[in-house]
Amino acid sequence: MRYELYYWPTIQGRGEFVRLALEEAGADYVDVARRRGKRGVPAMMKVLEDKRAARPPYAPPFLKAGKSIIAQTALILFYLGPRLNLAPRDEAGRLWVHQLQLTITDLVVHIHDTHHPVSGWLYYEEQRPAARRRTQDFWRYRVPKFLGYFERVLQHNGGTYMVGRRISYVDLSLFEIVEGLRYAFPKRMKRFERKVPGLIALRDRVAKRPRIKAYLASKRRIRFSQWGIYRYFKELDA
Amino acid sequence: MRYELYYWPTIQGRGEFVRLALEEAGADYVDVARRRGKRGVPAMMKVLEDKRAARPPYAPPFLKAGKSIIAQTALILFYLGPRLNLAPRDEAGRLWVHQLQLTITDLVVHIHDTHHPVSGWLYYEEQRPAARRRTQDFWRYRVPKFLGYFERVLQHNGGTYMVGRRISYVDLSLFEIVEGLRYAFPKRMKRFERKVPGLIALRDRVAKRPRIKAYLASKRRIRFSQWGIYRYFKELDA
Repeated sequence: MRYELYYWPTIQGRGEFVRLALEEAGADYVDVARRRGKRGVPAMMKVLEDKRAARPPYAPPFLKAGKSIIAQTALILFYLGPRLNLAPRDEAGRLWVHQLQLTITDLVVHIHDTHHPVSGWLYYEEQRPAARRRTQDFWRYRVPKFLGYFERVLQHNGGTYMVGRRISYVDLSLFEIVEGLRYAFPKRMKRFERKVPGLIALRDRVAKRPRIKAYLASKRRIRFSQWGIYRYFKELDA
Repeated sequence: MRYELYYWPTIQGRGEFVRLALEEAGADYVDVARRRGKRGVPAMMKVLEDKRAARPPYAPPFLKAGKSIIAQTALILFYLGPRLNLAPRDEAGRLWVHQLQLTITDLVVHIHDTHHPVSGWLYYEEQRPAARRRTQDFWRYRVPKFLGYFERVLQHNGGTYMVGRRISYVDLSLFEIVEGLRYAFPKRMKRFERKVPGLIALRDRVAKRPRIKAYLASKRRIRFSQWGIYRYFKELDA
């Protein structure tokens, strides 16, 4: 099965959680919108704007698997999990990794909104005081609660993987969260990391996996930038 | 099976999407945190603060079904859907209603953040200018896109239900969204409703269902208030 991933071609964004799973599994996939010319972004827009579709995606990322189109990052991973051998086989285990992924989804909104709390249609510079305040509470309350929760789940499961005895897509997603927070908040994250040693070790473990390592060194891995979920502003990292 | 729902006892909030499904199905359930004394909120906090739990919920709402504890609103509904006969039976259909519910989940964050864009740890009065701007873009961009999307899906499916030929939990959730927007933004919503006639007719259809009608008239239905997702501020409804 050749999967088609549809996502914005210049950012890691939400699509990256799916890319990491496809890469770790060595899956056959096309990152559609990164193709040149009409077969790239216009092909993605065509699917998004198809008014006759019975089950249209609301927004990227979405995945085409045969005739199915599946949207919503966490749902794409729920779908791919067993197919890529990146989720437990039993029903309860599958629901549990999905639940964790949905909690990561919530965290991602909070990360994004640190720099754009007021509106995505304003520049950062137009919402700076609000961003500063949002960031302050993000690091005071949200980060300790979210990452503390994931750390606890990880330690309870033995410290190697989040769920069961094998790697799952949620481990890969937490790698991405750590990387993103390091990019956007290098100083704050450096101070915080000692509180979640398990997650940091998990991040290192994921980074060393042969396929992930090759992927991170390749051009397929888009660099962090000022246009994604994670953005660096010196004043927010105080 | 007697289900136990755990959610904050004084607001509709995210728990209401689950309550509506349980009520429509005539399910046997306990709204745990609404019980008096120690068996109420303290019983919920005990589950939340149990450091030894292998699969702890991150936050309410969560559902206890036998020995399983399931958190995340959309996942609770995904789990309950087939059990309450409120989801299609086929796998693709089940994933599709879940996808729609996840998009409702995204919308709920945007609704909440109209009045609290900067921080949940500040009063509304402390973030009024940001709330005004966030609300402006919410009604200019988000509402037309989200509700327009749901309207299109509904019409494409024949106009009666969102998915298939029977009611599903996503129909109930969209009822709640319309009710919530009417409470928080009576003037704006009144003007907007003509653009989504299908959703308004769906709202009416849901409101007339015997069990929902009885539920809405009962004390089990918590009133909208200034403490939930949907809050009324005259200046935001300009």
